[in-house]
Amino acid sequence: MIAKTAPMGWNSWDCYGASVDEATVRKNAEYMAKNLKQYGWEYIVVDIQWYEPSADNNDYNDFADICLDEYSRVIPAENRFPSSKGGKGFKPLADYVHSLGLKFGIHIMRGVPRIAVHGKGKIKGTNKTARDIASVWVQRPGEEFRVTNSCFWNTDMYGVDTTKEGAKEYYDSIFELYASWGVDFIKCDDIARELPHHEEELKMISNAIKNCGRDMVFSVSPGPSRLERSEFYKQYANMWRITDDFWDEWHFLYEMFERAEKWSIHSGAGHWPDADMLPIGPIRQCYDKNGWTKFTHDELYTNLTLWSIMRSPLIIGGEMTGFDDFTLKLVTNENILKMHKDARHSHQVWRKEIDGSEYVLWTAVSKQGQYVAIFNIGESKGKISIPLTDLEIDESVSALELWTGERAQFDSDITVELPPHATKVFLLK
Amino acid sequence: MIAKTAPMGWNSWDCYGASVDEATVRKNAEYMAKNLKQYGWEYIVVDIQWYEPSADNNDYNDFADICLDEYSRVIPAENRFPSSKGGKGFKPLADYVHSLGLKFGIHIMRGVPRIAVHGKGKIKGTNKTARDIASVWVQRPGEEFRVTNSCFWNTDMYGVDTTKEGAKEYYDSIFELYASWGVDFIKCDDIARELPHHEEELKMISNAIKNCGRDMVFSVSPGPSRLERSEFYKQYANMWRITDDFWDEWHFLYEMFERAEKWSIHSGAGHWPDADMLPIGPIRQCYDKNGWTKFTHDELYTNLTLWSIMRSPLIIGGEMTGFDDFTLKLVTNENILKMHKDARHSHQVWRKEIDGSEYVLWTAVSKQGQYVAIFNIGESKGKISIPLTDLEIDESVSALELWTGERAQFDSDITVELPPHATKVFLLK
Amino acid sequence: MIAKTAPMGWNSWDCYGASVDEATVRKNAEYMAKNLKQYGWEYIVVDIQWYEPSADNNDYNDFADICLDEYSRVIPAENRFPSSKGGKGFKPLADYVHSLGLKFGIHIMRGVPRIAVHGKGKIKGTNKTARDIASVWVQRPGEEFRVTNSCFWNTDMYGVDTTKEGAKEYYDSIFELYASWGVDFIKCDDIARELPHHEEELKMISNAIKNCGRDMVFSVSPGPSRLERSEFYKQYANMWRITDDFWDEWHFLYEMFERAEKWSIHSGAGHWPDADMLPIGPIRQCYDKNGWTKFTHDELYTNLTLWSIMRSPLIIGGEMTGFDDFTLKLVTNENILKMHKDARHSHQVWRKEIDGSEYVLWTAVSKQGQYVAIFNIGESKGKISIPLTDLEIDESVSALELWTGERAQFDSDITVELPPHATKVFLLK
Amino acid sequence: MIAKTAPMGWNSWDCYGASVDEATVRKNAEYMAKNLKQYGWEYIVVDIQWYEPSADNNDYNDFADICLDEYSRVIPAENRFPSSKGGKGFKPLADYVHSLGLKFGIHIMRGVPRIAVHGKGKIKGTNKTARDIASVWVQRPGEEFRVTNSCFWNTDMYGVDTTKEGAKEYYDSIFELYASWGVDFIKCDDIARELPHHEEELKMISNAIKNCGRDMVFSVSPGPSRLERSEFYKQYANMWRITDDFWDEWHFLYEMFERAEKWSIHSGAGHWPDADMLPIGPIRQCYDKNGWTKFTHDELYTNLTLWSIMRSPLIIGGEMTGFDDFTLKLVTNENILKMHKDARHSHQVWRKEIDGSEYVLWTAVSKQGQYVAIFNIGESKGKISIPLTDLEIDESVSALELWTGERAQFDSDITVELPPHATKVFLLK
Repeated sequence: MIAKTAPMGWNSWDCYGASVDEATVRKNAEYMAKNLKQYGWEYIVVDIQWYEPSADNNDYNDFADICLDEYSRVIPAENRFPSSKGGKGFKPLADYVHSLGLKFGIHIMRGVPRIAVHGKGKIKGTNKTARDIASVWVQRPGEEFRVTNSCFWNTDMYGVDTTKEGAKEYYDSIFELYASWGVDFIKCDDIARELPHHEEELKMISNAIKNCGRDMVFSVSPGPSRLERSEFYKQYANMWRITDDFWDEWHFLYEMFERAEKWSIHSGAGHWPDADMLPIGPIRQCYDKNGWTKFTHDELYTNLTLWSIMRSPLIIGGEMTGFDDFTLKLVTNENILKMHKDARHSHQVWRKEIDGSEYVLWTAVSKQGQYVAIFNIGESKGKISIPLTDLEIDESVSALELWTGERAQFDSDITVELPPHATKVFLLK
Repeated sequence: MIAKTAPMGWNSWDCYGASVDEATVRKNAEYMAKNLKQYGWEYIVVDIQWYEPSADNNDYNDFADICLDEYSRVIPAENRFPSSKGGKGFKPLADYVHSLGLKFGIHIMRGVPRIAVHGKGKIKGTNKTARDIASVWVQRPGEEFRVTNSCFWNTDMYGVDTTKEGAKEYYDSIFELYASWGVDFIKCDDIARELPHHEEELKMISNAIKNCGRDMVFSVSPGPSRLERSEFYKQYANMWRITDDFWDEWHFLYEMFERAEKWSIHSGAGHWPDADMLPIGPIRQCYDKNGWTKFTHDELYTNLTLWSIMRSPLIIGGEMTGFDDFTLKLVTNENILKMHKDARHSHQVWRKEIDGSEYVLWTAVSKQGQYVAIFNIGESKGKISIPLTDLEIDESVSALELWTGERAQFDSDITVELPPHATKVFLLK
Repeated sequence: MIAKTAPMGWNSWDCYGASVDEATVRKNAEYMAKNLKQYGWEYIVVDIQWYEPSADNNDYNDFADICLDEYSRVIPAENRFPSSKGGKGFKPLADYVHSLGLKFGIHIMRGVPRIAVHGKGKIKGTNKTARDIASVWVQRPGEEFRVTNSCFWNTDMYGVDTTKEGAKEYYDSIFELYASWGVDFIKCDDIARELPHHEEELKMISNAIKNCGRDMVFSVSPGPSRLERSEFYKQYANMWRITDDFWDEWHFLYEMFERAEKWSIHSGAGHWPDADMLPIGPIRQCYDKNGWTKFTHDELYTNLTLWSIMRSPLIIGGEMTGFDDFTLKLVTNENILKMHKDARHSHQVWRKEIDGSEYVLWTAVSKQGQYVAIFNIGESKGKISIPLTDLEIDESVSALELWTGERAQFDSDITVELPPHATKVFLLK
Repeated sequence: MIAKTAPMGWNSWDCYGASVDEATVRKNAEYMAKNLKQYGWEYIVVDIQWYEPSADNNDYNDFADICLDEYSRVIPAENRFPSSKGGKGFKPLADYVHSLGLKFGIHIMRGVPRIAVHGKGKIKGTNKTARDIASVWVQRPGEEFRVTNSCFWNTDMYGVDTTKEGAKEYYDSIFELYASWGVDFIKCDDIARELPHHEEELKMISNAIKNCGRDMVFSVSPGPSRLERSEFYKQYANMWRITDDFWDEWHFLYEMFERAEKWSIHSGAGHWPDADMLPIGPIRQCYDKNGWTKFTHDELYTNLTLWSIMRSPLIIGGEMTGFDDFTLKLVTNENILKMHKDARHSHQVWRKEIDGSEYVLWTAVSKQGQYVAIFNIGESKGKISIPLTDLEIDESVSALELWTGERAQFDSDITVELPPHATKVFLLK
């Protein structure tokens, strides 16, 4: 089963935008193999526009001259990924990642390259050309006019019309290529939020992956995905973003609680609502060589606790080789990672104002007992007592706080003192 | 704690509309005491317009001459509730219900009687009159014009303006009266769906109940309540309707699955999303002396299973003294009622089409094991196999089917054969 | 033909709100007869709640004890209209107004009195009661729930259900009464803006007026009426409000230009879009004995010019006996009133910004020539030249400025200098 | 003054779609010069995609290889317009049209060619390239996401970002080219309906035309244009489409009455609401060599009458050389064309149902008298009498019916008998 538990890994976006290079990927893989692998971390993912030679930060160069092979398929820019020279694609890099005991992933954009469309590029396995399969228009439900069916924030691609001859061959051909490289994880962009008018294209991609001969996690972006289509995502993808990009400002973390509440019941083996990457440690370094997460320690605990109790995928966004001791410990806490792996039936219990601050209570169960997380998402420090009856517990319980390892006994209430943005999370028995 | 588990009882609406009388209430209380009490059933609730002398079916007589006491409070119509004569109100009837070991409830409408407003009726404990506290207008969010703040399907009341002097005294006075009668359960209508513009009135009623000196379950209607205000309902009410009136046609039951999915995580001790009454056995007899539920046996199992695994309140709508053997067994199955009482973390797992029919999978946990309900809500018979991994179970399990008592062993899949609208529900260990 | 030209008169609202009395009506009628009648002014209209004994300003007393006759029909409050004593209604006052050579009008609310409904008041000509014809609910298009069908700013009435037996008799009976009093003008409120759900009631009232045996102008309020139903208003009413209440603040006048543009083509003999009363001279005196219009002289010229070139009804809102010389001249300018009477095909030509101010150009034609009005509705003084080709005039024209009587010759442009909010209006030949 | 009266001419779209050729243009010009010129017809307009070599009907070939000059400007496809060979563009053809005493027009698409953008095509007068000025995205008001700023029904162009250096140079350069060819009329597409997000681009085009050194009528498409921006169109364009494409089916003509009513007051010298081309005689011949208008004679009279009384531009859509006698007379009726030229203050008077059919009354005035058109737009034949007072006429009038030349006298009513879809139009004196 693919993604039986929520995937754990690293992705280049938060630190390098569209401009990561091979050396950076290699050193992060090495760091992960040495320091994190034993805790369950395994995926190394190259994010967007690895086929764009001139990319050098978070922005996209409109109508850039991207790299294609003879069959209209994007290939790594050799100036950024030297081992790909000679038509080798990502195979050498993937091999190296595999040699470290890890798995290798790439980002792709929905669609077919515009320059292949205007240039009548060939498609493998058919005499149709890229021009024949481009999806020119789409009618969004409830809108007066149709719109052009292409990404609204990046000009690399036109959409693909799945009803056209050659469309299936195109998508089959790209995953055949990625399988030959040894890709284990596909992050497909410009496809999750825009449902329903891209559902057919998502299905075609999902089937192409399933039939490509190699197991690949199928992750779809960007968010917010549409709650009313939860069963569709479950059926065709392994993880789907539940928000737009998540970054290291408190309001993003605050807003995630509402998303998490709604999506919680849709987590399960093989299908994971994805709260996006963890912006921890060194980030945004394509803009600022000294970039570092703006989250406080309390906020980082809150970030990891929510992602873990809700069982979101955990994808590190920071440059791992620059981790300080705190950050390394943050992502290697065994209690927390055990909860991430073993929790079942996770859900919010309540969210309310108490004494001028705002609190959220989550719970989940495992064979070891009942997990309870208490978040202070308001702006003032508070000491609150939560009756065990709020958790429908009628007896005394012993408790382990997961981050600190402290033990306690609660008879009728759980009393905690929490600064703003801070968290406590217990395993109750 | 009030309503620590989801309330179980009987209500007069489904069979008698606005026209139930004292003899009918008494005989149902007697039947419950004799046949159902030992299974946990306890509330006997008189529904709407017990203060309307001319009510004789489900319809309301517009601008009817309803019965009031000297303080603008509605009192039972003596022609329908003879024991209330002499200003005794519902006390004699409540006393009788209590004598059977049961609890007594009544329905009320939000607001103050229109005839008291036009007649400048007195309010106990203040020199203000009914006219002074009537809430004349309300501005609904997003609408161009305000509207009159009165119920849009019954003319008995005007709303109450909680900012007015005398408003609190009015609401306090009515619950003081109900407490003196011995009322244990308040079903307040015209208040749940209309939030947010009635939130202040709901809060005032909730506080009046809490301060009236007697424990009363506070149930609010009609539905659908607003999901985005779930925390508000939790805080101020014990149960709230999640749909408009539920009746004995398949489409109502089919539609409940979507509501149930969304509300499931909001159930807990003291606060219960309410899927409405069970239209079982003899119903609608105010129109048809031979009225009987149109649900098939399979549909009735589905009805009781969904309500029980989601932990909705269970309120019987049929005339109990006319129950056949099937119906009596339906509401006295100990396995099902144990699930209703003990289930925790109930939620839908998935909903999907398989081989041309539509299926829903629910789960919940208790100390005894894991509950799993499989519903065929499509229109064709099917035999389906559900991998245990869908439930994140990795090992063989023994199973008890709750309705039939049959036992089984499942190694990797749960295979069931289900006619349309039918259900199987297991306890797995 | 009723209202062959747009009606001209006086109304009590702008100065007295709901509280005008008989003496005030008489003195205004006398003033009009003496000073304005020869210029075409003729209607004297008593506005809202003349049946409410305790009304004393612009506000309404909710659930007030209003005066009814034995047939549930409102009658004048005797304390305010002493001549109505002995069941004479408005006949003595109407007779007096007629004796001065003028016409008499009254305001009514759509519907049947609430106190008659709750009290089962009789209706003339039928054995049905007020309770039988009350329209309790209405479903507004596009809204989820129906609402109570009663005015949302005044509690005197419930709506009338035109499908009920007794409804026609009720409306016929009230106009029979008004005809017996000698009423010439009905301003019916709570009916124009709320279309379409009150269309049937408006039609029933219109037909009752047509069949009552006396000519009455039928004016409907409040605004804004719905442009898409223009033909409906034309067919059933003689004038209909195109805005909510118009008052003496510039923004109201500024906003009228947009309404006037849209409604201009719907003016014609017998059917007049109504820009509301002229808040000139002494107004709001029920609040402030020294109340006086806040409009400047330039704004008053603009007000009268727009109303006259668009052929809105002209209804004076101020207390006429307090007019100063300027105000009297304002409403007795013969050039302007001739344009009001003779203009045809009135319409806006353009509206645009020139040199930092905003200008509007209107035109209309009559047998005497072409009218042209130039309004500076911006906030800075300007001198602008308007090519005659904007008016599709290709030759020199002679011009008479209507307010000043000045004459000019324009060869290729009309050049005017206008302070903010000021107006020039010419007759070109 | 450009377009002092509403333009009259011929356009290739209705008969040839995107595929008209030089020979066809020449023969229509010759026919017009010989048969129609003396009645005021003057423009010969080549519609869309004259730069597309493979166009052969109404459809567009997505991503076609269109013809450009060295400065990214579209030029005629030489296989379709042989006289353009050698870089002469449309000059030889325009010269020929001018030699016949007529004027020459072309259609253009908003924007810059996609193939020039992907190929970094040069722009005259700047060192910026087509890629630098392409407008990639646009945010439509009220929508959650921005969309790609390109036409949603044709792939030739990307939009132009007017804030970019090089944008003005691009638009100036294309009109410099068209002026050098002798173009007199520009029909610019993909720009009218999409306001407001294309307003800046429309302004830039309008200014480029004004400054190009040659008078050109500026016509904008497609419709429906936005009524609330009427003053904007007036200021920057000479004519703008008020509907989507108009064709020879009754429902299109029926629906035009509502558009015409709303736009009527915005007609005037230099600025004309445009009801689209006249689909008369031979049309759609790129699909069907025998294509012929489906309108009946009555419908054709109605079409011409409405367009003429409202003063829409009159642009013939049929192949003129195939006109039958009826069609030639239709477009050369001197009474009608005089009304089209001389009418002022055109507007609808009313629209209503009479005896089961639906009628519309229009009027306009000229120095010769008052025009009145009566349209039966319902589905049954009727004889109706229209009181002269509906037109605010109080005396007897003599009348000339414009199509038949019949004369009549009307004393108090105009009585006409009209089959469904038929029209009478009178000049009253």
